[in-house]
Amino acid sequence: MIRSSVLKPLCGLAISKPWSRFRIPRIISSPCLKATYTTKISPKLTTETYPSVKRDSKFKHLSSEDITFFQSILSQQELLLASDQDNLEFYNEDWMRKYKGQSSLVLRPKTVKKVSQILKYCNDNHIAVVPQGGNTGLVGGSVPVFDEVILSLNYLNQIRDFDPVSGILKCDAGVILENADQFLAEHGYIFPLDLGAKGSCHVGGVVATNAGGLRLLRYGSLHGSVLGLEVVLPNGAIVSSMHALRKDNTGYDLKQLFIGSEGTIGVITGVSILTPPRPNAFNVSFLALENFQAVQNVFVKAKKDLAEVLSAFEFMDSYSQDLTRKHLENINHPFEEEHPFYVLIETSGSNKEHDDAKLEAFLESVIEEGLVVDGVVAQDETEFRNLWQWRELIPESAQANGGVYKYDISLPLKDLYSLVEAANQRLEQLGILGDVPKPVIRAIGYGHVGDGNLHLNVAVREYSKQVEEALEPFIYEFISSKKGSISAEHGLGFQKKNYIGFTKTEPEIRLIKDLKHHYDPNGILNPYKYV
Amino acid sequence: MIRSSVLKPLCGLAISKPWSRFRIPRIISSPCLKATYTTKISPKLTTETYPSVKRDSKFKHLSSEDITFFQSILSQQELLLASDQDNLEFYNEDWMRKYKGQSSLVLRPKTVKKVSQILKYCNDNHIAVVPQGGNTGLVGGSVPVFDEVILSLNYLNQIRDFDPVSGILKCDAGVILENADQFLAEHGYIFPLDLGAKGSCHVGGVVATNAGGLRLLRYGSLHGSVLGLEVVLPNGAIVSSMHALRKDNTGYDLKQLFIGSEGTIGVITGVSILTPPRPNAFNVSFLALENFQAVQNVFVKAKKDLAEVLSAFEFMDSYSQDLTRKHLENINHPFEEEHPFYVLIETSGSNKEHDDAKLEAFLESVIEEGLVVDGVVAQDETEFRNLWQWRELIPESAQANGGVYKYDISLPLKDLYSLVEAANQRLEQLGILGDVPKPVIRAIGYGHVGDGNLHLNVAVREYSKQVEEALEPFIYEFISSKKGSISAEHGLGFQKKNYIGFTKTEPEIRLIKDLKHHYDPNGILNPYKYV
Repeated sequence: MIRSSVLKPLCGLAISKPWSRFRIPRIISSPCLKATYTTKISPKLTTETYPSVKRDSKFKHLSSEDITFFQSILSQQELLLASDQDNLEFYNEDWMRKYKGQSSLVLRPKTVKKVSQILKYCNDNHIAVVPQGGNTGLVGGSVPVFDEVILSLNYLNQIRDFDPVSGILKCDAGVILENADQFLAEHGYIFPLDLGAKGSCHVGGVVATNAGGLRLLRYGSLHGSVLGLEVVLPNGAIVSSMHALRKDNTGYDLKQLFIGSEGTIGVITGVSILTPPRPNAFNVSFLALENFQAVQNVFVKAKKDLAEVLSAFEFMDSYSQDLTRKHLENINHPFEEEHPFYVLIETSGSNKEHDDAKLEAFLESVIEEGLVVDGVVAQDETEFRNLWQWRELIPESAQANGGVYKYDISLPLKDLYSLVEAANQRLEQLGILGDVPKPVIRAIGYGHVGDGNLHLNVAVREYSKQVEEALEPFIYEFISSKKGSISAEHGLGFQKKNYIGFTKTEPEIRLIKDLKHHYDPNGILNPYKYV
Repeated sequence: MIRSSVLKPLCGLAISKPWSRFRIPRIISSPCLKATYTTKISPKLTTETYPSVKRDSKFKHLSSEDITFFQSILSQQELLLASDQDNLEFYNEDWMRKYKGQSSLVLRPKTVKKVSQILKYCNDNHIAVVPQGGNTGLVGGSVPVFDEVILSLNYLNQIRDFDPVSGILKCDAGVILENADQFLAEHGYIFPLDLGAKGSCHVGGVVATNAGGLRLLRYGSLHGSVLGLEVVLPNGAIVSSMHALRKDNTGYDLKQLFIGSEGTIGVITGVSILTPPRPNAFNVSFLALENFQAVQNVFVKAKKDLAEVLSAFEFMDSYSQDLTRKHLENINHPFEEEHPFYVLIETSGSNKEHDDAKLEAFLESVIEEGLVVDGVVAQDETEFRNLWQWRELIPESAQANGGVYKYDISLPLKDLYSLVEAANQRLEQLGILGDVPKPVIRAIGYGHVGDGNLHLNVAVREYSKQVEEALEPFIYEFISSKKGSISAEHGLGFQKKNYIGFTKTEPEIRLIKDLKHHYDPNGILNPYKYV
């Protein structure tokens, strides 16, 4: 099955080695990894889509006195009012264009002190607040539902400090992830997390949502790498814990509560994080496989053979690649033929020769065992980026025809793909999947096998109650039956607020609610969401 | 300066390479890494040493009704009473023999349900409780101060589940660390933490104290690797969060609060943890250096050159090795001559040949640059263990002459050793350091350079107020001035309860106290400690 159209074997390999016969991928122009809207369909107001969700009457409606107060502490640039010519759509609509709030006020303070003043005022006056980073969240957590004030961290965007010996970075919450990583690259370090929205998302948002992303397999979760946070509590208290110590066992590790709290108990304004040395050598291989069992077997082997240099192990099903082919139109896919499954494997290490040798031995072995039926290996940086695009542009491609229902799921590896099959089966049985005018195009599956994390995307021509009800709680019940998580990395936000019980037990939920109430007794922070 | 007494060069290396001239270490008999008492001097009662600490009158004195209740739910084996022939010394005295409580009751429940019944009863009746694991803590956190009931996890010692595909281990809290690691070794995995007391300490205790140990540099902190916990709260509620998911963003990550909480807000009864594949190849090199600047330079180079295979970087000063030489008596040190500093570097990886090549290139380079003046490389498993002993037996050696004041400190790397120099200088100036009858033998320094973690040990002939007052708050003030942590990995316990303010700010301490009160309103769990 492996074709012999060899263009360039990886350096130092005899042409007779089976995997050296892999073709190199064809060049794809203009990588586009930044988060942009991919559907032109403007979202309905969240209140129209979900009429059962009611505005909490305990929250004050903004008055001219409130505006006057905010104007007294903020410059013109730091305050956007809907009544002016300012267009607040960007702040009210989420990236997926699934949710749309009705806020008339966006505050963009340039100092932590101003964040504190804003929160204290809102808390004292029972004004609801939505903290917002790059607004690239996928569960409707970063936009208002009703008229909540939007507190944007856009202008808190400075690198504060970097120590090139320890690799510890301190920065404002509003620094864009890609900017942080580029800064680190200049010093030989790397941000220990990467994701498709890196050109827009904020370091603070990444921490507030405990984002996982593409390199968790290698560098672990933010709970391990974040060393300190600066947080403003709802009452305006600034808790500065910007520690720069790899180890510190003096008291409860309170910063951990804010990692993944989605702006519900405090607003992160500063982050101190341990960054690893930037690898010298990268490899990417894109492989074709016949079934999901082969994906699992290849993963177990990669973990053993590539071990310390394995930095990503992503899988994609044929449906996801099919949508991406259509979205990228005239650009050639790495493979001419279609295959049921694809895997992208990245290695990164300190010694290119060693990494190449490990990858070579690994690929030889998986081909000989018949686990892999075709493959390509990137030969240079351009090809490296191009191969990654076929993974990173799936979300955008899935949404390009109207919309997408996104489920971000942790499941035991053996059950990981069965949910995609079950979803398609159900949608077919209900007669809502197929060509126009059926609402659903297809449920597709891809994700981070290395983390047991499936992205189930249901690509639709438009959002509708019918489709949503076909999918929920069906999908959550499936996950619960396998003891998985209904949100591996996207968080709860608005979308999953009511479904936490499918993953967490009653005593756990009680503790979570209790903590929310403890830190935000007036409930002003990010209401209608999370829990 | 590098001697040429070659015995065995590392496989595959030309004899002319400079580092191949390193001698192999001489064989040391009977590795002894288990935690055992090393001083025969019995400790004074903590209440005698610290008369200013008073028993809190809110706690009930045990009555015969209380004993009757505990006897009604526990078997004879699960309950030890001082009034019987049972000797409770092991449970009342800490490993360092610095603290001694006066508990007359040890409970060793065999089920989580019994843990719950015990805590509920104690909470309802205001009976103070000390949770205890392997009792190898170093800050007096695991033994009572007065008559607190000791709740030992000894009998909760079963492996619950292991998944060889994901590497996720679930076990009871009372499983001994070494047993867990041996179990994992049989499946090709490794516990992501190692420390000298592994033969005695419990997995639950390791988590409750957020132990760091020897491999944090490679596998990161427990905040990253622990996936789930089962915890019994003071009111007896069992919170079962034994999740086995690498990613789960559904609600606040509450388990993080219990990691490093030292038994003050709940009792950990079960642990779910992600374990990495066991490396195939290990190397250890033991190097001699002229000054601490060279230690730092070698570390920065090791991080870059050994990168993904670097698994430990430990430094030791000449004083620490001097004490260890005396303690090990007739066993030969790797080096005949004394040197100001030593470094132990461990690599571990999936490919011995690659690791050897990386280590070779690294050693060549540090020798050529004049950073290292002598060195040995282990040739086999025995030598590997022997070299490690010269690091792992320092704590025992420091204590062997009567006692040791232990300080476990995070500091910026450049300041790491200056504290040892400052401490010796101060002790000399006060005229209390020197030969008999001076109370202090020497302040020694060693530790995990890779984590910015110094162990400052002050070896003494006996514990005394005079020495303690010479050291405290002097040491804490020094740390505070450098923005370090007064406890990198040992925790606060009884010893450091009053010194947290040297590392944490007032707002942080308020939040910590607030949380303690929130979860343990009656204050029954591990009183007189932590915060």
